[in-house]
Amino acid sequence: MATRNQPSYRPPQRYQSRHLPFGDRRDAPFYGKHILSVKQFSRDDLTYIFEVAHEMREMVLRVGSFDLLKGKILANLFYEPSTRTASSFIAAMQRLGGSVIPIHEVRYSSVTKGESLPDTVRTLEAYADVIVLRHPQKGSAELAARYARKPIINAGDGTGEHPTQALLDLFTIREELGQVDGLTITLLGDLKYGRTVHSLARLLSMYRVELHYVSPPQLRMPREIMEEVAQAGIPQHEHTYLDEVLPITDVLYVTRVQKERFSDPAVYEQVKDFYVITPEVMARAKDRMILMHPFPRVYEISEEVDADPRAAYFRQMEYGLYVRMALLAMVLGKA
Amino acid sequence: MATRNQPSYRPPQRYQSRHLPFGDRRDAPFYGKHILSVKQFSRDDLTYIFEVAHEMREMVLRVGSFDLLKGKILANLFYEPSTRTASSFIAAMQRLGGSVIPIHEVRYSSVTKGESLPDTVRTLEAYADVIVLRHPQKGSAELAARYARKPIINAGDGTGEHPTQALLDLFTIREELGQVDGLTITLLGDLKYGRTVHSLARLLSMYRVELHYVSPPQLRMPREIMEEVAQAGIPQHEHTYLDEVLPITDVLYVTRVQKERFSDPAVYEQVKDFYVITPEVMARAKDRMILMHPFPRVYEISEEVDADPRAAYFRQMEYGLYVRMALLAMVLGKA
Amino acid sequence: MATRNQPSYRPPQRYQSRHLPFGDRRDAPFYGKHILSVKQFSRDDLTYIFEVAHEMREMVLRVGSFDLLKGKILANLFYEPSTRTASSFIAAMQRLGGSVIPIHEVRYSSVTKGESLPDTVRTLEAYADVIVLRHPQKGSAELAARYARKPIINAGDGTGEHPTQALLDLFTIREELGQVDGLTITLLGDLKYGRTVHSLARLLSMYRVELHYVSPPQLRMPREIMEEVAQAGIPQHEHTYLDEVLPITDVLYVTRVQKERFSDPAVYEQVKDFYVITPEVMARAKDRMILMHPFPRVYEISEEVDADPRAAYFRQMEYGLYVRMALLAMVLGKA
Repeated sequence: MATRNQPSYRPPQRYQSRHLPFGDRRDAPFYGKHILSVKQFSRDDLTYIFEVAHEMREMVLRVGSFDLLKGKILANLFYEPSTRTASSFIAAMQRLGGSVIPIHEVRYSSVTKGESLPDTVRTLEAYADVIVLRHPQKGSAELAARYARKPIINAGDGTGEHPTQALLDLFTIREELGQVDGLTITLLGDLKYGRTVHSLARLLSMYRVELHYVSPPQLRMPREIMEEVAQAGIPQHEHTYLDEVLPITDVLYVTRVQKERFSDPAVYEQVKDFYVITPEVMARAKDRMILMHPFPRVYEISEEVDADPRAAYFRQMEYGLYVRMALLAMVLGKA
Repeated sequence: MATRNQPSYRPPQRYQSRHLPFGDRRDAPFYGKHILSVKQFSRDDLTYIFEVAHEMREMVLRVGSFDLLKGKILANLFYEPSTRTASSFIAAMQRLGGSVIPIHEVRYSSVTKGESLPDTVRTLEAYADVIVLRHPQKGSAELAARYARKPIINAGDGTGEHPTQALLDLFTIREELGQVDGLTITLLGDLKYGRTVHSLARLLSMYRVELHYVSPPQLRMPREIMEEVAQAGIPQHEHTYLDEVLPITDVLYVTRVQKERFSDPAVYEQVKDFYVITPEVMARAKDRMILMHPFPRVYEISEEVDADPRAAYFRQMEYGLYVRMALLAMVLGKA
Repeated sequence: MATRNQPSYRPPQRYQSRHLPFGDRRDAPFYGKHILSVKQFSRDDLTYIFEVAHEMREMVLRVGSFDLLKGKILANLFYEPSTRTASSFIAAMQRLGGSVIPIHEVRYSSVTKGESLPDTVRTLEAYADVIVLRHPQKGSAELAARYARKPIINAGDGTGEHPTQALLDLFTIREELGQVDGLTITLLGDLKYGRTVHSLARLLSMYRVELHYVSPPQLRMPREIMEEVAQAGIPQHEHTYLDEVLPITDVLYVTRVQKERFSDPAVYEQVKDFYVITPEVMARAKDRMILMHPFPRVYEISEEVDADPRAAYFRQMEYGLYVRMALLAMVLGKA
């Protein structure tokens, strides 16, 4: 396993930004790096990120906020609205004593006058120390990173990646169940279009887990992802019904079947009620398991489940705060 | 009267949030409580709030800002725009050294994907220490509070309440005229739909005042409010014309007749010019009286009145800052 | 030249706000003043502003941020979106340790209920220490300043002025080339509607420079500006083609030909490609010259030019940060 200052893994050049500012720990792993894709992480990297995130959690529980990033500025650049992710990054920066430039109204601004993403990024890095980017187009985070001297953190690029979501999902499992190795993990719902479950499956393939995919036939996990996971030697099983696998599941990860993904509304109506988690479903699950969801949920987990201690989805958002604190501190050379 | 640490009044359970964080003064009154309605306050509570707000005023005049809430985060959750109220809470938090997550673009966000208010609130409390909520639906603040572990402050819930506005109105009277008992207070304009005057009348009924209601017949104070006030033993008088009561008025509280409240535009045109305050009107008022308005004003107070020292409406907004500073410090256990 | 505490120039009364708060250096030049127009500055003022901005640059390069304006609040009031300018002022305030109330969604707010700009400004000064105003109407900044007790900084008032842009343009020249006197400066593109080049030409006329204006005949520099500049004894030359003047140019300032300025789209298509800067153009320019642009650019400078060390437009934005830091510190009495 990598120690703090001797990471076993050197990410490829494209994750390395060119910026070398004042007074930062240049020997820190991830210092000055972009966070673009789950593919950039080794298992040692994950271990390190989660150790830092765990420390962040302990610090927040003990003192709420602290001044690790005092004086640092985050440009929170959201080309599409995402209250949850935007708020999480804002809070992460503020709990570390840093400041945020909130840019959540991009659609109305110079972008509509035709400015390119690289120009916007190079403008913002004149003001800020790190840029969090949410953009509807796949590949936009990597495009931005190609031009940026300051670290870019990908907060979702359309059908591409949302690496901080996958990291917080994994961190949730680790914090809730103590470890990831040895677990049976079931991904449920829209596995075809769900960016979240794709990234999570990729990350999980670095651990000794067993994966189950439960979805309607139209929404199966893409072959491309399954092949990647198979190459890592991870057992995978596809199911149409949850019952088959619920009793052995340690982590049940539910995703929403989004109406906007369907060209035919009739197909949507046909599948949408298939995979709803109710107290009755939970009664058949293990006593020591956790129920996760990337949120927002609509109907796919009924509100009566919220009081169940195994319902981890609200805690999951709090874990997201700690992971984002860790990433911000790391790319700014302070962890 | 209640002393700092021994409040005479314990609010009902629903105003009590369940959160018990690090290092806060748990014995402080209002610590961890929701601010949902003027109905939750006793007169001792009001005395206490205004004492804290007065201290806030003195601190701001002396040092501008201070670090009482350093490290605390406010989620400013506005489902409808209100620059004035939103800015006031942001400034209140910042003058106390705290940070703000501004969520002013809710309409475009996950809410449109159908997320419930309780889920949004439970998300934000994973990041923030206190939530200020503005929502167009009556009862939404109480709904949010039912689910929240962190304190909720109601910043207006449609036709429901806007308790911090009523508190700042009362604080303005106290700071400007020294006391509330013994005053003759005249509420003018749209008394039927004006949420502000309803809450203010309720709060005033805890003091020995005389109330006058001046409005067109279509826009009288609702019977329900008048009965509540009557039960407190407060004399009330209704008028159609201001002249009848202006010479004895100590506080003239003007509200706007809002076009959007009228289904028939002709009725609006008929009443709108009835109750405009001009220098000529002010010439017939007491030398020591104050003119108040919740703002925005359009035409109901002419700009020539602004220079009159009795025009208290701009100072009223500044008093709002102090009241909101007091409430934030109180619910976070720091006052 | 003016020393710090004895400015040779006293701006007229309208640039003087009436506010006198706690603990500020009342003898500091620009303390409590509005920044409304480039016309308000003497050359000594400019020297002083640029000295402070240069210090800000050195401080940021050395420590990133510092607490000169800790506890101060900026209300960033944007009636029209401008990500670049808004972000620049936010970062400027944050790098000085101050806070920002971001008001970027004005269009949806009480303004639509008809509130006047003076009322909005008088509201915000109840909360904030300084107001940055962007407004589509010419003269709005001066209108706001007429009512404000706290300093107003004009961040663009329609076809009026954008003084901080002109100051940062001049500061860029000073920092990049060491001095302004003696330079040959060429303004290119839309000189008729470009507010930026008008203000810059006015400021430049306080220095010993030679000005060249290159534009299509339809978009010539207005006579009014040229007469002002001529009165200052500055040589001016008009050209239709860049080639004539490129070899002697020290500063080439490119502006965009904006489609929305043309009533006839055919005329736009006819002129738009005339003045595009490519590596081939740069090959004919001086070795020691700088290429500037107020941004956003669309096509008028090709991306291949970005790698040219003479391309100063991204550094120009960074200089903007320092100029805005200087102005904020100055009007708040801290520089």
